[in-house]
Order: sequence, then C-alpha cells, then structure tokens
Amino acid sequence: MDLSDLTTPALVVDEAAFERNLSIMSSHRPGARLRPHVKAHKTTELARRQHAHDHHSFTVATVREVVGMAQAGLGEDLLLANEVLDMRRLGAVVQGGARVTVAVDSEPIARAAVTGGVREVLIDVNVGLPRCGVAPDRAGALADLCRSFGLDVRGVMGYEGHLMLLDDPADRLAQTEQCMQLLLRAHDDVGGDVISGGGTGTWTDNTWVTELQAGSYALMDTAYGAITDVPFEQALTVLTTVVSVSDAGWAVVDAGLKAFGMDHGKPTVLGADVWFCSDEHTVFSMQDDAPLPAVGERVRMVPAHVDPTCALHERMHLVNSHEVVLETWPVDLRGW
Amino acid sequence: MDLSDLTTPALVVDEAAFERNLSIMSSHRPGARLRPHVKAHKTTELARRQHAHDHHSFTVATVREVVGMAQAGLGEDLLLANEVLDMRRLGAVVQGGARVTVAVDSEPIARAAVTGGVREVLIDVNVGLPRCGVAPDRAGALADLCRSFGLDVRGVMGYEGHLMLLDDPADRLAQTEQCMQLLLRAHDDVGGDVISGGGTGTWTDNTWVTELQAGSYALMDTAYGAITDVPFEQALTVLTTVVSVSDAGWAVVDAGLKAFGMDHGKPTVLGADVWFCSDEHTVFSMQDDAPLPAVGERVRMVPAHVDPTCALHERMHLVNSHEVVLETWPVDLRGW
Repeated sequence: MDLSDLTTPALVVDEAAFERNLSIMSSHRPGARLRPHVKAHKTTELARRQHAHDHHSFTVATVREVVGMAQAGLGEDLLLANEVLDMRRLGAVVQGGARVTVAVDSEPIARAAVTGGVREVLIDVNVGLPRCGVAPDRAGALADLCRSFGLDVRGVMGYEGHLMLLDDPADRLAQTEQCMQLLLRAHDDVGGDVISGGGTGTWTDNTWVTELQAGSYALMDTAYGAITDVPFEQALTVLTTVVSVSDAGWAVVDAGLKAFGMDHGKPTVLGADVWFCSDEHTVFSMQDDAPLPAVGERVRMVPAHVDPTCALHERMHLVNSHEVVLETWPVDLRGW
Repeated sequence: MDLSDLTTPALVVDEAAFERNLSIMSSHRPGARLRPHVKAHKTTELARRQHAHDHHSFTVATVREVVGMAQAGLGEDLLLANEVLDMRRLGAVVQGGARVTVAVDSEPIARAAVTGGVREVLIDVNVGLPRCGVAPDRAGALADLCRSFGLDVRGVMGYEGHLMLLDDPADRLAQTEQCMQLLLRAHDDVGGDVISGGGTGTWTDNTWVTELQAGSYALMDTAYGAITDVPFEQALTVLTTVVSVSDAGWAVVDAGLKAFGMDHGKPTVLGADVWFCSDEHTVFSMQDDAPLPAVGERVRMVPAHVDPTCALHERMHLVNSHEVVLETWPVDLRGW
C-alpha cells in the first residue's frame, strides 16, 4: 500500500526520521537510563520499536496505558507517573506478572495502592510545576508512611514540565538544576535506587535523574521543533486531502479540530499561512505567491502538540521515503 | 449504576437538560425544518433521541458518520454537508438503501459523486465564511454541470459559521440576513426544494433556510453558553476525580488535553479559576476563598467546545437528577 491509498486524514510516521530519533536518544540515554513515555503516542507497536532500542522500562500516564502495555508483553517495568485512586485494574496487572510502580504524593494515593494490590511506588515530588507532587521537605515522611503500609518505595520522581519549552539553553539548564536539587534533597530523605524525571526538552540538561521520562522525542511536534538545541526530527505528520480551493486565494483540507491537538496552537503547512481550523477543515493561503494546491492533492501537515494529536486517531501508518506504507499500528492505548 | 461508579474522566449527559434542549429546538424547528448535525456528538444513540423528537433527516461531516448513521437505521435522509473526494463508501451506503446527499462546490467533487455512486447533491455556496463553497454567482453553472452528469440537485446549502458566536443579537441578525440573501440568489439560479444552513447560534435569526443544520444545541458548551439569547442549557460535563491537592492552594483533577477540545479555550470548573491543562490533568484554584476539594472528590467540568470534546471519548453516560446512570452510549462515529 502506498501513501496515496490512505483515507485522509491519516497519521503518518516517517520511518527514517523516527528511527534516527530513537537512535540519537538511545545513544545518549541507553537502556534503563531512558524510560520512554508512552502517553506521547499511545501505541504499543511504537513502544515495541523503543523496546528494540533496548529500553525495557516505560513511563505511562493512565491505567489504560498500564493495562495495554502489559497485554502487549511490554510490562517488564511500568511506571504510572501519575496519581490514581482506583488501582484495582493495576492490581490485576501485577497479579498477571507485570511490574507496576505508581507515583504517590499523598496518603489517600498510598492507601489506594495498598487497596488495589500495587506494591511498588515512587514518591512524586513537586519540583516547581504547580501540579502533582508532595512538597520536597515532606517526601521523607510520605516514604515512611508508604513503608509502614508495606509498600516498596523505589525512589523519587519529579517532573520539571514548566521548563520543557524554554528556548534559552542556559536558562533552561540553570532552572533544571534548581528543580533537580529539590528532587535530590527529597531523595536523600526517601532513599531507593530510582530518581526519575525530565523530558524531551531537558534530554541533555537533566544529568541528575537516573532515568529520563521523555516521550515526544520519538515523533516530535512544532512546539519541541522550535527549540534550537533539540536535535530530533519531525517524524509525525497528518496526511490530508485538498477538498476545496477558492479563487479568492485559499485552500481547504479535510483535517481540523478532530485531527489535531490545538492547545499549543494551529498545525503547520509548509510554505503556507494557516488561517484557522474547524471541526473537519483547515484553511490556508500560500506564502510568497506560490500557487495553491489543486482539489485532490495531498498535503502533509505538522501538529503543534504530538500527545493530544495521537489521542485523536485510531491508527498511525509507518512509511518509508518512497511513500510506501510499511506497517499500520493501532493507537491502542486511547481512553482510560 | 451511579455516577460515583464511573471511571474518570467520563463524558456525562444530564438527561433533563438534554431533553429540554431537544424540546425547545423541536418546538421552534419541527420535523424536517431541523436537520440535526451529528458532528457535534458523533453518537448514534443520541441521534436516535433527536429522531424521537421527529427529526428524521440528519447533517453529517464525514464519510464515517454517513456509514454509521445508515448502519444504525438512521439513514432516511443524510446530508454530508462537506466536500469529499472518495465517495466509494457512500455509494455502498446508497446501494444499501439509505438516502445520501452530498455537498458539491467544484467539478472534481461532482465527478467524485458520480464515480462513487451518489446521486443527490446540494450546491454548497460560500456565503462569507472563508472555507468551502462555490461563489454565489457561479452556483447556477455548477448546478447545470451536476445535472449534465446525471446528478439530482436538491437545492443549496450555505453555512454562516463565522456568525455563530457573535454575541450582539442585532448585529448577528443583520449579518445573517446578508449571508442568506447571497444563498437565496444562488438558489434562484440552482433551483430545488432545499435551502440548508444555519446553526445553534442563528437558530432563531435564520428564517431564510428551509432546514437548520444545528448540532451544539443538544449538549452545549461554554462558547455557545456565553451567547445571551441562546436558551439551551449545559447538558454535557466531563466527570473528573481530584487526584492531588497542594497546601499552596491548588487542586488537580484527572482530565486534561485528552479529555477536552481546547481550540475554544480551557474548560470551566464552577467557582474556580482554571490555571492550565496538561495531557491528563487540569489544575485550578478556588474563587472567593472557598475551600479546595479533597483528594477523591468528583468535579464536573464544562467543555469550551462540544464537538472536539466528544471526539476524544469512547462513550457518554446519560444520567438523571439523582446521578443514576440511565444509559451508556458509545461515541461510535469517531474517526474517518
């Protein structure tokens, strides 16, 4: 099958760029030093490629992602880097032989782990992003509480998510160090082997974690692509078809709000100005007096944010440089 | 089953508000004078409720929506109010006995209808929104071309989508009239029984169309809710669980960018200031020194844009005022 045979809109992964991204990251963070974040793509077949690059431990964000990764045989060491209250499905996964570790930032979450049958936890430490995580100076007490419940505390995690898209490398590095000093101090009180954190934006900056939780690096988006010292290539596009062209100077393709995560802004069309997206359309004009495409032409668009974009699609297609579809992967970890 | 038994995040429909919305619209636009737009909810069971209010003709935006509506036995009169090039699946639906009409705004689309086996069309006229639609003064010639291909031209459609969220009723009415005068002039040249257009925002303003293509009125969102003369109630919420609370003054729930369409802005928490959404979280603080909810409490959030929000969920739950789950409907028309 060829790219031109696909029904549009369709998620397309350029295999060469994707494999280069995996290789660059694997060289820098080999094996267990990378814990690829599955939330970015929600696709077990893609995770299998990351596994083939020798990363056997994964980060996930939802119970559904834990269950699906375990079912796919990728449950060697799954970290649910998120607070969850109903852990019964996780306990069943543990019973089934997979290894599941959950983030804990409060007593109710620790109790939920016990009740659900999850035995291993990381203490989730707030390192500056106002979201989940216990205050650093209370991490040790929470670890003690978890241990008193019979839980195995493997270490700490702390996500410097507010720094990921900082474009000034020196500023990002300095702030990452501040965040990680908080995490290390918490780790002194908590103990354990694991210090987990970081992401695609701090992939070289964050030298303090024992494992990096990067996800976007595999497929990329325009938000991360704008950061000058992030070397990963755009591997993901949305294939669209031009369905209408106006003499007044615009073209319309058949992908819009239901094909692109919009929180980081509009998707990009190379050489064009994107005017707006509506549910099933994107409208754009060409730059530099370039001619508009004709009705029926295919246009590959670049998402602004990879994670919510993948969550909108049922499948993604791996293609080579000759536009041959090599594999079609279900985006099988959607939902909760 | 009770609301508290649902895994979160979950789409929840308040049955009383939903049925009131359907009744208000049906009173004003009975029977075929409303052609409910399925793209807003992508749910055949919800469409069945609209059918029970005596609307037997539907508007859809994708081929998948046509196929699914026909499979659900709701294919009496389906209008694909969108330009599509690959109509083979539509031809199969017509062969199966459903009635399918497609929008046409260019010769390639007309040819695609013929090739695909679709026999009925509306001429899609651009009435001001820079998107699809032929220029009004060329609608007649396109209709002639369609007829020369053997297609049955049922009339015209023209969507004044750029006016839907105008809050000044007089301005919206005046601009709607200007748009519809363009559509009526095109209709003079095209002929046929159907003049299709409008939406929830112009539900009373647009007295020129023979059928209104409204969709959002059934479930609503904060964007339409902000319009003072739109009487429909918020029937849709996303049920979430508080998973983390900070002493520093914020709470975190387990629904974010993968549970809410974000193009119209952030979702709303009653009585709270929403700080931001990330993939699986929304962070908020309380207004007026109200206490933060506790970990484990449920919070119902209101989406800013109903259509892309529904497209992110596998199912929606119909609940009554006692929070009993009456029915669970698959959002079965997602994808393409």
